[in-house]
Amino acid sequence: MRLRKRQWSEEFLTSLKNIVLTEEMEQYKGRWQEFFPSQADLPLHLEIGTGKGRFISEMAQLYLGKVNFIGLEAKGDVLFQAAAKIRAQNLPNVKLLAQNAFILPDLFAPGEVERIYLNFCDPWPKTRHAKRRLTHRGFLAKYRTVMGCGGEIFFKTDNEELFEFSLNEFAAFGAELKNISLDLYRQNGISSYAANVPTEYETKFKERGFKIYRAEVVFIK
Amino acid sequence: MRLRKRQWSEEFLTSLKNIVLTEEMEQYKGRWQEFFPSQADLPLHLEIGTGKGRFISEMAQLYLGKVNFIGLEAKGDVLFQAAAKIRAQNLPNVKLLAQNAFILPDLFAPGEVERIYLNFCDPWPKTRHAKRRLTHRGFLAKYRTVMGCGGEIFFKTDNEELFEFSLNEFAAFGAELKNISLDLYRQNGISSYAANVPTEYETKFKERGFKIYRAEVVFIK
Repeated sequence: MRLRKRQWSEEFLTSLKNIVLTEEMEQYKGRWQEFFPSQADLPLHLEIGTGKGRFISEMAQLYLGKVNFIGLEAKGDVLFQAAAKIRAQNLPNVKLLAQNAFILPDLFAPGEVERIYLNFCDPWPKTRHAKRRLTHRGFLAKYRTVMGCGGEIFFKTDNEELFEFSLNEFAAFGAELKNISLDLYRQNGISSYAANVPTEYETKFKERGFKIYRAEVVFIK
Repeated sequence: MRLRKRQWSEEFLTSLKNIVLTEEMEQYKGRWQEFFPSQADLPLHLEIGTGKGRFISEMAQLYLGKVNFIGLEAKGDVLFQAAAKIRAQNLPNVKLLAQNAFILPDLFAPGEVERIYLNFCDPWPKTRHAKRRLTHRGFLAKYRTVMGCGGEIFFKTDNEELFEFSLNEFAAFGAELKNISLDLYRQNGISSYAANVPTEYETKFKERGFKIYRAEVVFIK
């Protein structure tokens, strides 16, 4: 089935051009802070799979003046929804890229990123697709490259098998695990991690009674 | 309520005296292999909380001539049931102690033990009892002492909150995690860990549909 290509007006898309970066982005490797001219000394956090942007826009609001954010989202349609949210809130500390995680080491210089958020990524349940999971050791090596030693991954999923796979991948990579939760909303529906910002998907699945799993990972070598 | 003390005949208890060691056991610190005279060069594995002994007796049978086992069980009554199993199978590579894990460093010399099995230990759900959980870092330090660097813990539980707590304790201790399973009998009721020997409790709770959690831990420093 072919999807209808254009759902957005030219005018709308033009208004997002300072938020959704569409140039040849490799040229900014090592220079990403130029997009945040007044706050170029802040840590740079990345979300991979930004979706409709609730998480990254709330985070950007919470950490305004403290953290700069870049969201990667390969699907153009949801990316524009995220961009619209960011524009409506006039957030100067978020940029979005229509990219996927494969090319991270081409986009960012070693150590340029401090933290990566992986929220509810595709579980790719078939074993032969394991390499596509964003927590596969092949991806961990990319994350390690752009963050350097001390870099962190904050990971959430509602998929038990993906979480199990991921814990084993993190451990096999020699990364340190922290704040592992096997049921983020245990008991009362309130997240046990006080600083938790839910995604659209998370709220929906939590309300349906699904468990949310969470872990933090630190590259210690 | 006072429990009736003696449920076993003198004759029966006497017949177990080569299996259940009841002397002042501190004197054997560093010399445990003397209890296995013909196989004194084998690795020594410990089970903490042996219960009725299904696990340790099956393991001893499987690893006859390969591993010597010592089971700790503080409750005398179940300890004697375990001993009866071991006697019936005439297993030369298992001894039992009516001890608990607190005194491990008094019983074993540094590095004397190679692996510790923790099977379905008490979850102690109240936060103020966290220190009593056998995976609390206080106990991990004791295990580390008697095993040295390279020592391993094989841990199983059906308690999600204990498993979550334990993963965080293992990670905080700087131990390496391996073969984490969030549902050992996922799908078909057959354990995904081929070498798995179930305990009495495990079989019962698996059949009732409870999830069994499992992890291996290696002290890498």
